[in-house]
Amino acid sequence: MSDPSTKDLSFLPSIKSIAVIGASKKRNYFFLRTFHDSFKGRLYAIKPGAEKIDEFPDVDVYERVSDIPSNEPVDFVFIEIPREHVVEVIKDCGKKGVKLAAIFSAGFNDAGTEEGRQLQIELLRAVSEAKTIRIIGPNGMGLYYPRLGIRWRVSLPLDHGSVGVMAQSGGLCNLMIHGLTSEGMPISKGFSIGNAADINAIDVINYFKDDPETSIIVVYLEGLPPGRGTQLVKILQGCKKPVIVVKGGKTAVGSKAVKSHTATLAGDVAIWEAAMHQAGVMLVDTFEDILGVGKFVAMIGQKPIKNACLLTLSGGYGVVCSDVLASHDIRLPEFSITIKESLAHILSASGTSLNNPVDVGSFIYDVDKLEAILHAVLNDPAIDGVIFEIVPIYIAAQMRGDPLDVALPAMLRRIKQQHDKPVVAIIEDIGYDAIRQGLKRSLRELNIPVYPDIAQIARTIRFINKIHIMAK
Amino acid sequence: MSDPSTKDLSFLPSIKSIAVIGASKKRNYFFLRTFHDSFKGRLYAIKPGAEKIDEFPDVDVYERVSDIPSNEPVDFVFIEIPREHVVEVIKDCGKKGVKLAAIFSAGFNDAGTEEGRQLQIELLRAVSEAKTIRIIGPNGMGLYYPRLGIRWRVSLPLDHGSVGVMAQSGGLCNLMIHGLTSEGMPISKGFSIGNAADINAIDVINYFKDDPETSIIVVYLEGLPPGRGTQLVKILQGCKKPVIVVKGGKTAVGSKAVKSHTATLAGDVAIWEAAMHQAGVMLVDTFEDILGVGKFVAMIGQKPIKNACLLTLSGGYGVVCSDVLASHDIRLPEFSITIKESLAHILSASGTSLNNPVDVGSFIYDVDKLEAILHAVLNDPAIDGVIFEIVPIYIAAQMRGDPLDVALPAMLRRIKQQHDKPVVAIIEDIGYDAIRQGLKRSLRELNIPVYPDIAQIARTIRFINKIHIMAK
Repeated sequence: MSDPSTKDLSFLPSIKSIAVIGASKKRNYFFLRTFHDSFKGRLYAIKPGAEKIDEFPDVDVYERVSDIPSNEPVDFVFIEIPREHVVEVIKDCGKKGVKLAAIFSAGFNDAGTEEGRQLQIELLRAVSEAKTIRIIGPNGMGLYYPRLGIRWRVSLPLDHGSVGVMAQSGGLCNLMIHGLTSEGMPISKGFSIGNAADINAIDVINYFKDDPETSIIVVYLEGLPPGRGTQLVKILQGCKKPVIVVKGGKTAVGSKAVKSHTATLAGDVAIWEAAMHQAGVMLVDTFEDILGVGKFVAMIGQKPIKNACLLTLSGGYGVVCSDVLASHDIRLPEFSITIKESLAHILSASGTSLNNPVDVGSFIYDVDKLEAILHAVLNDPAIDGVIFEIVPIYIAAQMRGDPLDVALPAMLRRIKQQHDKPVVAIIEDIGYDAIRQGLKRSLRELNIPVYPDIAQIARTIRFINKIHIMAK
Repeated sequence: MSDPSTKDLSFLPSIKSIAVIGASKKRNYFFLRTFHDSFKGRLYAIKPGAEKIDEFPDVDVYERVSDIPSNEPVDFVFIEIPREHVVEVIKDCGKKGVKLAAIFSAGFNDAGTEEGRQLQIELLRAVSEAKTIRIIGPNGMGLYYPRLGIRWRVSLPLDHGSVGVMAQSGGLCNLMIHGLTSEGMPISKGFSIGNAADINAIDVINYFKDDPETSIIVVYLEGLPPGRGTQLVKILQGCKKPVIVVKGGKTAVGSKAVKSHTATLAGDVAIWEAAMHQAGVMLVDTFEDILGVGKFVAMIGQKPIKNACLLTLSGGYGVVCSDVLASHDIRLPEFSITIKESLAHILSASGTSLNNPVDVGSFIYDVDKLEAILHAVLNDPAIDGVIFEIVPIYIAAQMRGDPLDVALPAMLRRIKQQHDKPVVAIIEDIGYDAIRQGLKRSLRELNIPVYPDIAQIARTIRFINKIHIMAK
């Protein structure tokens, strides 16, 4: 059930018409062009004079939203006009019964001036008086909803999936949308909430919590409305979906940058962190952590790997990885007697001993042997999952046997069919782009997330493990 | 001057002939084929029966190295025969006056058996009796010398440059060679020293120190011959070239993995670290750190960035980066009055204020303005260098102005001509591969290293800054 004090956004999937307010020839109709390019519903342009725009003959143009005939409802407006006209436009939208306005215009609280602050107060008063309207912004990009063709840039992907993203900043939203989509995790809806005068982080998270189109929630937070921290924690505690949060302003410098960015107070870090962890949130540090943790959760879920088996193609790299994993509290336990016994015939035949990490070097082209090792390891209750380094060089240099870029995914498919434990892969970004991308695609289909280095894997697993330690 | 107790390797550039000992049809003449593919000098094959090999009609085949006519010297041999025959072959090579042998054969100290240990002792005795011969290995890949076409895999690049690399492990050498070369830092020589029975890490580092073909030294170390730590530190202290070291076995788990890998004792970490830092070595953690620090040093040198100016395309990402930099002790100082005054005309025109980090979002396509900001910032003695985020999305989505992927490098070229301070770039790996690769190449030519994320930049700068704190 929704928290009654949060704002209702459940009408979003029914958006059927959009008006772009402020379509300007000088800016080459940037946003009108953008919505025209992909939005599947009815589109209007609002501009002084209200004459037809040559470039968009199929778009009806009006001087005000309320001039649009009453039998043509407008669900969503995108506002890109000078700040001093925004309040009157919102009042006009209220008359028309518009449900949602994205206000791109800046110069409100973000200006850091008394004038800007007053303007934001007036804006909120207009919203409150209009009753039916909700606003995203000002100073934000608004709504990204690829299934409906709603986006704020033509370059944003139209693939749609089940990751909900939110940030104050449009730029960071762009990074998250592109990054997650290109890693195979397309977006359900994205919110760039800017100053968050009306719709704020809590509203969006609460919406995602119950949104059937969203299964993973990714949020960049700079701060919250004063005194609302407890409410957020309560909402998060009731949230069954994985939530990944990057908190901006954790250091003094970052906190200053937050203030300059959206005039938000970053708040006390220690309290924040404790509350987030308690609510089972994965609190990560950087943009890359979002992608790293995101793909783990999307493909594997929130399964911890406290005891791993590591396979590398060189013993030396195995040592380096062992050190990195150990410093992230991920153990590489010695193989049990059970594992060793079940592999005795292979081991005696090859004359080598089998340790964890496994030095695969000499038998990388022996896929049957790799399969036997993986089976034995994943059958052992002492091992939570496998980290497997695949080096594109060896695939490029293969001279005998079945091509490894086919045989390896085929073998891993059999493994994944029989075992439910996490398998993650390292493929270093050291040239061989075509091989790397091809393998990455094959493994993604098997729900094996691929990372370019051990550091990102170790960070990711530590974030996942942490929620199992922190949460009750 | 060379340390007299280390072994002389100065003959390497004069290698003119190679014999592959153990060329076997069963292995499809793997190494003979490899040397035949690219080595520019005279090539021999040594095998029982000594009959010509159909696939390599131009290669002279002998039963023993000493059968090769005395007027045909052999400089380097690559040995890939069962371990029990290695000692007699080394004795034979000694008779012939061979200067260097790479012993690929394993099963010596690395076997972890008394038999293997005895075999390595016998091997060393043979080396010592032969007087003229030095060996790399056993259990190593030997020498990579791309300028002479010497390599142990056909897939290793033939581009040659000035980075000297060394590792026990051939696999890790492969990663370093491919990674550094594909990042624009090709290799002078590479050593995979395996068990390091004769030529060891100290010999190689001492050789690189005086090698005119090498300007940066990159080393993966698992351990040292007992009691030689002081000697290594002395050599490093006398080394004028940047040295990057990854130490394997820093944790208990890694240390155990080292023992299983090359039967080396990893040694006491704290003592190691202190000694390395004292000698001005950049001691890094992972393979990716090698590439990150390597490209900084290759393009910029060892200049610290204690006070940075950060430019990002979104305010939110600027906040995230500020936090990451702060947690790596890299400051983003407030801009001085001098900077603000020199930019007053730009600032008043745009109505924005200029803070560090700079939120470039609104004027990314205004290259003149970016140039003015960079000039003002780099002229200020309080700023050591610039970190600049470039987002491929914006370049792909450009609708007006000169194409940014041309205008931006052109502007940065002018900046780099007038300022000697470091400039580094972030280009996220979120699709747009062609744009990203193109920009990376353009910036590389300007000695602007490109990183995929702020975490790698922060780690790299911290490693560079550290040598200025630690070294006298």
